[in-house]
Amino acid sequence: MEYEDSTLQEIDSALQKAQAAFMLYKKTEPKKKAAFLRAIADEIEALGTELVSTAMRETHLPEARIVGERGRTTGHCRMFADLIEEGSWVEARIDTALPDRTPAPKPDIRKMLVPVGPIVVFGAANFPLAYSTAGGDTISALAAGCTVIVKAHPAHAATSTLVAQAIDRAAKKVGIEESVFQHVYGKSFEVGKALVEHPLAKGVGFTGSLAGGKALFDLAQRRPEPIPVFAEMSSINPVILLPDSLSQQAEKTADMLASSITLGVGQFCTNPGLILVIDNPALEKFVGVLATRIEASTVGTMLHEGIAANYVTKLKQSLAQKGVKLVGKSSAASENVAGMPAVASVSATDFLANELLTEEVFGPYSLIVRCKDRHELLLVIHHLKGQLTSSVIGLESELTQNADLIQLLQEKAGRLIMNGVPTGVEVCPSMQHGGPYPSTTDSRFTSVGIDAIKRFVRPVSFQNFPQSLLPMELKDENSMSIWRLYNNEWRK
Amino acid sequence: MEYEDSTLQEIDSALQKAQAAFMLYKKTEPKKKAAFLRAIADEIEALGTELVSTAMRETHLPEARIVGERGRTTGHCRMFADLIEEGSWVEARIDTALPDRTPAPKPDIRKMLVPVGPIVVFGAANFPLAYSTAGGDTISALAAGCTVIVKAHPAHAATSTLVAQAIDRAAKKVGIEESVFQHVYGKSFEVGKALVEHPLAKGVGFTGSLAGGKALFDLAQRRPEPIPVFAEMSSINPVILLPDSLSQQAEKTADMLASSITLGVGQFCTNPGLILVIDNPALEKFVGVLATRIEASTVGTMLHEGIAANYVTKLKQSLAQKGVKLVGKSSAASENVAGMPAVASVSATDFLANELLTEEVFGPYSLIVRCKDRHELLLVIHHLKGQLTSSVIGLESELTQNADLIQLLQEKAGRLIMNGVPTGVEVCPSMQHGGPYPSTTDSRFTSVGIDAIKRFVRPVSFQNFPQSLLPMELKDENSMSIWRLYNNEWRK
Repeated sequence: MEYEDSTLQEIDSALQKAQAAFMLYKKTEPKKKAAFLRAIADEIEALGTELVSTAMRETHLPEARIVGERGRTTGHCRMFADLIEEGSWVEARIDTALPDRTPAPKPDIRKMLVPVGPIVVFGAANFPLAYSTAGGDTISALAAGCTVIVKAHPAHAATSTLVAQAIDRAAKKVGIEESVFQHVYGKSFEVGKALVEHPLAKGVGFTGSLAGGKALFDLAQRRPEPIPVFAEMSSINPVILLPDSLSQQAEKTADMLASSITLGVGQFCTNPGLILVIDNPALEKFVGVLATRIEASTVGTMLHEGIAANYVTKLKQSLAQKGVKLVGKSSAASENVAGMPAVASVSATDFLANELLTEEVFGPYSLIVRCKDRHELLLVIHHLKGQLTSSVIGLESELTQNADLIQLLQEKAGRLIMNGVPTGVEVCPSMQHGGPYPSTTDSRFTSVGIDAIKRFVRPVSFQNFPQSLLPMELKDENSMSIWRLYNNEWRK
Repeated sequence: MEYEDSTLQEIDSALQKAQAAFMLYKKTEPKKKAAFLRAIADEIEALGTELVSTAMRETHLPEARIVGERGRTTGHCRMFADLIEEGSWVEARIDTALPDRTPAPKPDIRKMLVPVGPIVVFGAANFPLAYSTAGGDTISALAAGCTVIVKAHPAHAATSTLVAQAIDRAAKKVGIEESVFQHVYGKSFEVGKALVEHPLAKGVGFTGSLAGGKALFDLAQRRPEPIPVFAEMSSINPVILLPDSLSQQAEKTADMLASSITLGVGQFCTNPGLILVIDNPALEKFVGVLATRIEASTVGTMLHEGIAANYVTKLKQSLAQKGVKLVGKSSAASENVAGMPAVASVSATDFLANELLTEEVFGPYSLIVRCKDRHELLLVIHHLKGQLTSSVIGLESELTQNADLIQLLQEKAGRLIMNGVPTGVEVCPSMQHGGPYPSTTDSRFTSVGIDAIKRFVRPVSFQNFPQSLLPMELKDENSMSIWRLYNNEWRK
């Protein structure tokens, strides 16, 4: 089946419809929006094996992964439904009037978060369900009260279409107006450009390459009216191995990292692409076990030809840099091919002298950086760009001794992990999936968990409003019984 | 006294020191940071009449205004001190581990807001105290745990220096490390450019012109690492007068608006620069009274020569546009001079055809746009750019009938006011001082009230951390007794 690029006229029409729908949808009561999100989950489940087989065919991901990702997708639909039905997320603040205050009376002022308008979402190649058509961006924007236009990722347009149809059915079932959700196609950059530059677009969600995300960010900031772009782009997720821990558990650590590096053919934004170590007697054992595990690993099929070709190029490039030595690669491949797990190592001196080695190689590859001592390790961390995550493997005693190192890591990453690997992103309120540039374009927000809704809202104050005109969340009666900061005190 | 522009070397050194200080200050316990903010308030008060007379001399603002602004400044120092001492503002979320969960165990994850790093603040011409050296930007950034470099506004460099010295004294008194706060001078754009482009700067606060704010925003977005800019720039704060209300209280409405237009020589970002009316019998009476009040008003001295010259130019330009008719101007001036209150009117047709009339004229000037009917009024509102505020004067019955109009206004402004004027910005939790572009560069944040602290923080997740390494706010014991979302339930 062919999915033709949407024309500029179609894109303009989609944004016009999205804006008209927004003016109605933004007033939809939370219960109905919640029912819509739950109906989306139901309709996605009702797609059954057709969705699973289509996604498997388009992405080469195994059945268990697709089924798991479907669960995550329907899970966040229901999570946001619960969130908006409970209602406290709007951050209601109420300051009642003091008509007798001198020198001037104090007016009644109330504030809450309101949706910003139509949002453009780009489907992600590496998560055909959870970060695509009904992914976290779409669902959190719909939960906020925004309308959404999704550009299907060309590598899984059929999967995207199935999910889009499920969302349409859910909208009909619940009685949500047309065009609250729309689906467009585009292989060419022009489609994305037209969407982001359209004056009615008020925000953008994107997960993909640094080049792609940065290009959209630049377009959005150069508009006559700049708009926020939430692009999750590039992260090498450094893992720091402290010496005492390595001495005690070199093999266990190597096992854990080998699994994380090869998981999903390394196609996770949280893939551990950098391992930082201080030279010590246990290091050779660790490197040896890791090499063995990588050599024994299988070669996977990557998501699409672009990602596969890019991996081969970047891998060759990395291995060709001064001082970089291959430690081990899958013995299932005779040469450097797409989807082939590989690990290399380099000295801190060579790493620090070569900016290219700080760039992401998207796939099952990791680079070990060998530092002479703790001082050099700190220099390497200083040298790193912004990351989604950073991990430290260490005994509690040496973690405590390295509090300064952890403080420094905090400046570099959105999520810090002790004695664990970065892959595996829990969907929960405490999850920060986002970090300093270039891991994302806006470190102040997360794309996973309930707080992802905050990307698509802004606060509005209502001063001296009659009760009848106030939004439900700000009326005296508090019919939803939400938490509100009422004259500077939390009340329900 | 001469205040020489800081050199590029001095700016680089200031940022280096700000970063070094940040790595210590960010760990300072809330109690001590709160003591620092309170000491700043004390030291500003201790400046006594010297501060008041210096500010009066530099800004031409009257004593009562400076004294009032000083109270607002010390007030927000103490407000943020209370906020961080209470501690719940960090939005702590805790999700405890489920080690037996299948298929994979759930790790312990905790999240809170942490400061982003050194912040550059530009002093504002129109608020020598409340939006300048110890203004809302500086104090909310210090409260967040960021270090701050303030560029003194050249028009009140002596005032700025006095306040900077007070902050230094407060830091010494409380034992806050050096360089947490720094003060630099710069008449030339190069100084601001160097500050914003410095790689160690992590955020920018600015209040001033659209041209100035947009230039800084563009510089910041084009850095190798883009950073957030909170620029409050340009707003004409439309006031809509509904017909029934105008029939009943034309005189009272005119009085109220005349006071708001002329307040502080019109030098407020919330000055009502646009009055939207539907032709009706009461209109002539309203216009007549407003003209009389404006004619009886005095001509004030504006803040500095640049603002004065700009007002004369923009006023002449506005009055020269097709269809714009002068309604009244202060009789104290024979020609169009700086600080002269004036009101003009134009038809909606001419207004809609002329983009220039939607631009801010910074000073005591307002333009009445006469609409034939409600339909034309809605067209005019559609045509408006983003605003800090929008007001509606109407009887409750007609407000209810115009719910769609209010919904539309919500898309245009950060604060909606019923039966009141936009001037007078309460410092309270429910205040949103910020709005869609070009009123600010980021409608998702406020520059007034406790939520202003959110501009200078980002969330960080701590996964599988031993208790000893967790920030105080996330430890099990909750020693500050703050509100936390604990396994999806609010707890204290």
